[in-house]
Amino acid sequence: MQLPLPPHLDEDAVIGAIDPVKDVDGVTTVNMGRLLRGEPCPWPNTPAGILEILHRSGYPPAGRHVVICGRSNIVGKSLAAILMQKNDRANATVTVCHTGTRDLAGFTRQADILIAAMGSAGAITADMVKPGAIIIDVGNNWIEDPSRKSGRRLVGDVDFEGVKKVAAAITPVPGGVGPLTIAMLLANTLMLAEQQTGYTSP
Amino acid sequence: MQLPLPPHLDEDAVIGAIDPVKDVDGVTTVNMGRLLRGEPCPWPNTPAGILEILHRSGYPPAGRHVVICGRSNIVGKSLAAILMQKNDRANATVTVCHTGTRDLAGFTRQADILIAAMGSAGAITADMVKPGAIIIDVGNNWIEDPSRKSGRRLVGDVDFEGVKKVAAAITPVPGGVGPLTIAMLLANTLMLAEQQTGYTSP
Repeated sequence: MQLPLPPHLDEDAVIGAIDPVKDVDGVTTVNMGRLLRGEPCPWPNTPAGILEILHRSGYPPAGRHVVICGRSNIVGKSLAAILMQKNDRANATVTVCHTGTRDLAGFTRQADILIAAMGSAGAITADMVKPGAIIIDVGNNWIEDPSRKSGRRLVGDVDFEGVKKVAAAITPVPGGVGPLTIAMLLANTLMLAEQQTGYTSP
Repeated sequence: MQLPLPPHLDEDAVIGAIDPVKDVDGVTTVNMGRLLRGEPCPWPNTPAGILEILHRSGYPPAGRHVVICGRSNIVGKSLAAILMQKNDRANATVTVCHTGTRDLAGFTRQADILIAAMGSAGAITADMVKPGAIIIDVGNNWIEDPSRKSGRRLVGDVDFEGVKKVAAAITPVPGGVGPLTIAMLLANTLMLAEQQTGYTSP
């Protein structure tokens, strides 16, 4: 199943039809409950990819202030649930901001790790970032670009050129979180297949 | 089922044996998944009581910065999941702090609404509170008190006498969140009974 669905289909009903033991996206109710409770489960792919990026790049979130902009089920809320857990891979202080947040910049400027997942092209600008912060751009926005043959260009939620001068590290769009999201989908598929078959990959 | 369980019993296994349609505490995996996804479900009682207190006292959380100290399943994490949803009763900017948080006071001093749910007697002191903040004390700690016949006294996580001089409003312990928690348990019981029987109370 690939989101978003055509508008005539009920997303909750379709997600509810997925068997949790085959839920490679980690989006079913029971798996999101395990996520919030801190129990083993397939993680939603984008948050899982973000955790991989942070750990493999030498920025473990433990003890850091992670500010998440956006509260979708598969990114913002799931990532918050993962990062606030008490374990070595997580244990961050987490703030979730969204369209109802007053003074967004006042929050983003406090972030040791800033997650931009609001779906708004270039919404995070350099003045909203603390010098030395780690920036993860989850945005996936098509903007018009007459210089391209297609007439459009993929950009993130972060003003990359401006913010890269302030941040210690920043993920690009495209080529940042996206490929990791796909890799995590495959990792979940393998994990759940192994759980069902009892076979463990070497 | 009453938590905490005796140590020889597996809490997750016992919770897993509760039918979600009879889950008056809102603690089963499927109901916590609905909570995180923002779907209708029985809310855990203490967060539900906190929402009642805030709304009935004229302090709706929408647009405010709620800082939650503590990340238990039935208080901190559940309350965070409720408050970050996009609806009129919630829509707060939420920060979750815990034992892994560096500079806890730096976060608590930013709170418009401060939720103390860490289980540490008198841990929140006046210097950790922004003047005019709303303080919800979820603590439930017994401390020695030779002046009492029982030799002990129930106190919260907030230094009530000190903090009440700074806060705009503050809940006491006992007599604050506790009675609301019990009322919400009964409200959930009624709601789930009505859902099963089809009968609606007048």
